[in-house]
Amino acid sequence: MTSLADLPIRDDLRGLTPYGAPQKAVRIALNVNENTHPVPDEVVAHVTRAVERALRSVNRYPDREFTALREQLAGYLSTASASPVTVAREQIWAANGSNEVIQHLLQAFGGPGRTVLGFPPTYSMHAIIAAGTGTTWVTGQRDADFRLSPATAAAAVDRHDPDVVFLCAPNNPTGTPLGLDTIAAVYEASRGIVMVDEAYAEFMPAGEPDALSLLPGRERLVVSRTMSKAFAFAGARLGYLAADPAVIDALRLVRLPYHLSALTQAAAVAALEHAPTMLRTVDAIREQRDRLLVELAGLGYAPHASWANFVLFGGVADPQATFEHLLAHDILIRDVGLPNHLRVTAGTPAETTEFLDVLARMAR
Amino acid sequence: MTSLADLPIRDDLRGLTPYGAPQKAVRIALNVNENTHPVPDEVVAHVTRAVERALRSVNRYPDREFTALREQLAGYLSTASASPVTVAREQIWAANGSNEVIQHLLQAFGGPGRTVLGFPPTYSMHAIIAAGTGTTWVTGQRDADFRLSPATAAAAVDRHDPDVVFLCAPNNPTGTPLGLDTIAAVYEASRGIVMVDEAYAEFMPAGEPDALSLLPGRERLVVSRTMSKAFAFAGARLGYLAADPAVIDALRLVRLPYHLSALTQAAAVAALEHAPTMLRTVDAIREQRDRLLVELAGLGYAPHASWANFVLFGGVADPQATFEHLLAHDILIRDVGLPNHLRVTAGTPAETTEFLDVLARMAR
Repeated sequence: MTSLADLPIRDDLRGLTPYGAPQKAVRIALNVNENTHPVPDEVVAHVTRAVERALRSVNRYPDREFTALREQLAGYLSTASASPVTVAREQIWAANGSNEVIQHLLQAFGGPGRTVLGFPPTYSMHAIIAAGTGTTWVTGQRDADFRLSPATAAAAVDRHDPDVVFLCAPNNPTGTPLGLDTIAAVYEASRGIVMVDEAYAEFMPAGEPDALSLLPGRERLVVSRTMSKAFAFAGARLGYLAADPAVIDALRLVRLPYHLSALTQAAAVAALEHAPTMLRTVDAIREQRDRLLVELAGLGYAPHASWANFVLFGGVADPQATFEHLLAHDILIRDVGLPNHLRVTAGTPAETTEFLDVLARMAR
Repeated sequence: MTSLADLPIRDDLRGLTPYGAPQKAVRIALNVNENTHPVPDEVVAHVTRAVERALRSVNRYPDREFTALREQLAGYLSTASASPVTVAREQIWAANGSNEVIQHLLQAFGGPGRTVLGFPPTYSMHAIIAAGTGTTWVTGQRDADFRLSPATAAAAVDRHDPDVVFLCAPNNPTGTPLGLDTIAAVYEASRGIVMVDEAYAEFMPAGEPDALSLLPGRERLVVSRTMSKAFAFAGARLGYLAADPAVIDALRLVRLPYHLSALTQAAAVAALEHAPTMLRTVDAIREQRDRLLVELAGLGYAPHASWANFVLFGGVADPQATFEHLLAHDILIRDVGLPNHLRVTAGTPAETTEFLDVLARMAR
């Protein structure tokens, strides 16, 4: 039998194993920060009808410019932000998940001979997509408790002079907030593209301004979002970003033509037409997140402040043992590789209760 | 206003314009080799129900291994080939269109410092994806009438010693067949991956063996296919390939996780469950293709032999004028950049008739 090692693969891929959280069939999956509430029936019905219409002309290639979808996404961002922002259709880009959006960004502005600066621990795909596009991944330090101050971040930019900077607000896997002052300071310090990954923005405290409010006048600033989290649409794979229209022009140069299917476009447009319904679980999820922060502390763990739909908690003597103990109870959470830490998604009240109960009964 | 030139894009992208056939709203679109017959109503209904089911759990990430889809694609290939071949699920890879499949292939086996050999005129995306992945695109000559003999192809391999070879059978944009003897000769001559792009395989003459029949014992051979053409599923974006399971392992290293949405997986599985219905227009399309070959010759043009769902014809004094004349009659075909040639998709009988009538009435 032929093995991978027998094939003429690239040298930098030899010995690697594919990325990916384990896809285990468990009763309670709190490992990949999904929205554990299914899409409401009325939205399923509406999206189904939209997909059915799209199927009637699916023999044709889709709209390469996904015009209707960009219109909907622009409209959503213009109303969703706590700050008074107006995002135009020409400022929107989308792809099959924010991973692909980020890949497009690095294909256009990174790549061989260029560098991207990140601040670990952060979203693990950032470094993987850098490698996949041949962009050199360089890292800066964080401050205490995984925070990132304007001075610390700007100093890292000065030191590395990167072509691209990746920020993550709130940060994954830590959940910690990132101040707009840090984003502005990084932008001022850098000559390159500054991307703020706001995958979890909808879970920030109500009324908090987001990075969209910084877009006007900053043509190198990019804010990425996703429908995978608050929108409960992870299976549909729809990531997007907002930026200056010139950035969008650059992404057109590197995307594969027709990268967004007619079914994806139709489904996402229909879901966005029901945005308030789709987002009606956000408050409930924030409640469970805040409950996790309180109750995990009550159990003697050390949860980190979170503005996302998950909580990273320290004080875990043996993360592997705790992970396995929960798994034995059919509860899957995530070991993100930080010593004495584990990460758990804020699920439904019942899921949160069961998770906390199993932890409480476990000897620490 | 910021322009693209003001942004820090990669130097190799400066001055480029995005790829893409014009997306004009016309009555008769025969420009991008779509299947111009819509998907049958019964299949639309079946696919719609499958997508509706998928939407009920769309808050979850999709099956990263798209197991059910690979099973269906393997089953389809095992029955569709004129040769007695058995393709196993482990031999299948899929992505959002065969463009992405090919991109994965070059990310794993091409890339910076590596070369891919192609034989223009051929599918224009091959060179574009090479550039996008940093793979050096080198070219070999074809024989007369765009054919490619075993000796000619193998000599090009000897000369360039490429890491990857791209063949296209039948070739696009010429429609010309490629013999299995050429594929076998290229494989023997090379040390790298040999990819045969069989996007149009279903339109080959009935009973002709395809490249799948060459897979056993050739672990560096890859056969790519698509649901965009014969399956009339271009809008759903589903390309795939068959190869040794070790090649599939390599592609897992470079794909973005969850690259295939749950809706895409559900839709494609449902469509494949109705494969005979989906493919029932193939015979009619072949008839129109053969009619184009005869009638274009009758009009004094010089059509090239075609095993695909389109015809490339020479003898066009002024391609741009002919293109515009047809467009004035709301008929869109394709100028593929070959002097004195145009390319037309074989559509429905009515579409073919109208195209030929307009041509016939036009002064040459």
